[in-house]
Amino acid sequence: MERIITLTTDFGLKDPYQGAMKGAVLSVNPGARIVDITHLVQPGNILEGAFVLLGASPYFPEKTIHVAVVDPGVGGDRKPILVETRSFFYIGPDNGLLSPSVREDGIVRAIELTNRDFFRDEVTSTFHGRDIFGPVAARLSLGAKPEEMGRALDKIRALDLPRTVLEAGGIRGEVVYIDSFGNLITNIRREELSGLDGAAVEVSVKNAALSGLKKTYAMVEKGVAAALIGSTGYLEVAVNCGSAAEAIGARVGDTVAVRAVNK
Amino acid sequence: MERIITLTTDFGLKDPYQGAMKGAVLSVNPGARIVDITHLVQPGNILEGAFVLLGASPYFPEKTIHVAVVDPGVGGDRKPILVETRSFFYIGPDNGLLSPSVREDGIVRAIELTNRDFFRDEVTSTFHGRDIFGPVAARLSLGAKPEEMGRALDKIRALDLPRTVLEAGGIRGEVVYIDSFGNLITNIRREELSGLDGAAVEVSVKNAALSGLKKTYAMVEKGVAAALIGSTGYLEVAVNCGSAAEAIGARVGDTVAVRAVNK
Amino acid sequence: MERIITLTTDFGLKDPYQGAMKGAVLSVNPGARIVDITHLVQPGNILEGAFVLLGASPYFPEKTIHVAVVDPGVGGDRKPILVETRSFFYIGPDNGLLSPSVREDGIVRAIELTNRDFFRDEVTSTFHGRDIFGPVAARLSLGAKPEEMGRALDKIRALDLPRTVLEAGGIRGEVVYIDSFGNLITNIRREELSGLDGAAVEVSVKNAALSGLKKTYAMVEKGVAAALIGSTGYLEVAVNCGSAAEAIGARVGDTVAVRAVNK
Repeated sequence: MERIITLTTDFGLKDPYQGAMKGAVLSVNPGARIVDITHLVQPGNILEGAFVLLGASPYFPEKTIHVAVVDPGVGGDRKPILVETRSFFYIGPDNGLLSPSVREDGIVRAIELTNRDFFRDEVTSTFHGRDIFGPVAARLSLGAKPEEMGRALDKIRALDLPRTVLEAGGIRGEVVYIDSFGNLITNIRREELSGLDGAAVEVSVKNAALSGLKKTYAMVEKGVAAALIGSTGYLEVAVNCGSAAEAIGARVGDTVAVRAVNK
Repeated sequence: MERIITLTTDFGLKDPYQGAMKGAVLSVNPGARIVDITHLVQPGNILEGAFVLLGASPYFPEKTIHVAVVDPGVGGDRKPILVETRSFFYIGPDNGLLSPSVREDGIVRAIELTNRDFFRDEVTSTFHGRDIFGPVAARLSLGAKPEEMGRALDKIRALDLPRTVLEAGGIRGEVVYIDSFGNLITNIRREELSGLDGAAVEVSVKNAALSGLKKTYAMVEKGVAAALIGSTGYLEVAVNCGSAAEAIGARVGDTVAVRAVNK
Repeated sequence: MERIITLTTDFGLKDPYQGAMKGAVLSVNPGARIVDITHLVQPGNILEGAFVLLGASPYFPEKTIHVAVVDPGVGGDRKPILVETRSFFYIGPDNGLLSPSVREDGIVRAIELTNRDFFRDEVTSTFHGRDIFGPVAARLSLGAKPEEMGRALDKIRALDLPRTVLEAGGIRGEVVYIDSFGNLITNIRREELSGLDGAAVEVSVKNAALSGLKKTYAMVEKGVAAALIGSTGYLEVAVNCGSAAEAIGARVGDTVAVRAVNK
């Protein structure tokens, strides 16, 4: 049976790990269609992994099985889990990695993966991607039922995401991710700016103060910074044909403030 | 229906973008077979993207759909286009990125993608890979007709490629690409050297002067530079088991001269 | 016919090479399922390529076709080979790259690829991945017989792997690979330690001396180094949530000693 299984990990692309995990999936279901979201999450950076999973997983077809493994606590007491949401299945460690994505889509049920019948015969203490998460995803893709795989969980671990703060005439958030283009992506959502006039705001980060929200990068001159709502619905700061991170000298965690101004 | 869709982008491999684009393709056609050519074009470098597309896309089976997105003008006035060639379909922005590939294979017709029925429901101004090019490719893979997707174009934008110059007893070109091995790939084609005796030429770049064209890297000692016709049909300068870029200190844009010598 | 073909190369991910090779495979068998193990082997590093292939290829389903190309001698006199093992097929240059994997799985027969009917029409001297190994794998995936592809070989080239040395009350090996997490992977196998009490050994590398083998990374405090048997069955030295390579300042080739101690 053909089912799409996506992978989001910090395994890197030069080591045998992501290949071994794909092999373990295909050994259970040779017809599984594996799609890489990324294997380049910074090692152990759960927040970054959660952000990338949230930015890519919603665009897949219904019933896609999303496996995410950023798992510094592997072999310790964090639980391996499967979460069924309204549109998808998410499988990975219960360390917060899945929580923004499953909350966004709506949790139907969560299962702690305890039934070893669904694991590889030999389960190591250091590589649950290959030995637990991959094989479970492959079994699910073959039609196995989540309820056979373990016991229901009342709740899963939430991620401590930095929150935005409402201020007089504006909102304050922070840079949560910097992409390969050097765009600064914030935790301020489009909806949080709905009360403001996009043309009459000032967005400031470090020493940069940007006037108005633009529609796209190309609305400012090359090399000039602009604030806009990015493709995933968050406020971002970008430089047309350049790197905002370099131009502004900003890093993850830097404050970003939006305030209304008189035009 | 199974059809191959290749992707060539500057989206990088750590961000959610290429995964989201694959999701958007598969949401339209869950049976599409997506093959990555690369996502590591230098951000916004249209010439580099065009070179990689030209170096890989011709080797795919007939009717393959090649999607390429290096698109610094996204959301501006550059057109989204589909070009049908003798063997393939190419989809991407009309900024020169597709032009060497479609000229090489022979243009059958070009279409400006204007029919929003073939796009994602929500089209952002910053991510046409996910919102336009991916879905259009997926619809094409399901059998949709190019003529339904927009209006015919008389011409598409050409890329300003550096040209070679014929000189007395030789030819002058330049380094247009440096690959991961450090090989210096030039814009001088095999055919342009057909009037010369390969054994009796000297190839010079920076301070290096190389005698004769070799058949393969291993024909010189380890660590020694050689000039040869590379696998895509262009003159290149390589160092056996080493990096010519480092050894010679050469960069994209450096002049490469070939001249006949007396043996 | 659907058959899995894996790729392990040093072609990199930014150049057209791995894309062109996939195209060459799919041009022969459009139904082939290509899975990337890695394209980021250090250019020309046969030992590293052999290690990654050994770490990933055994986890794939029976009859998987593993193609590996780390081939500094391309176009020279090294032979192109196909090796049938008990569970798989391995295809690549006869330069030692395949030898640890085929020895591990058990060689059934080895063939020198001499029959040009199975190659691309045009075979260049610099890109046998695209012109020989890929097309041969695709033909094999369509049901072609290895014996039609060339002549039987008595032996293939072995890789000069660093060997471990038994010492009074212990064993001495070396770091053979450093992964993306900074884990130091040695050539000392689990079986070689079976005579020792894991809790009563000391593992030393550079200035670090580690007490006992741990079960997993999380059994020591964050930032602390531990010795353990890694997921592929080799002794490794890791730092919980950190890089052992950085913390210890170790490199490939550094000596690792294990000796019994009194508790």
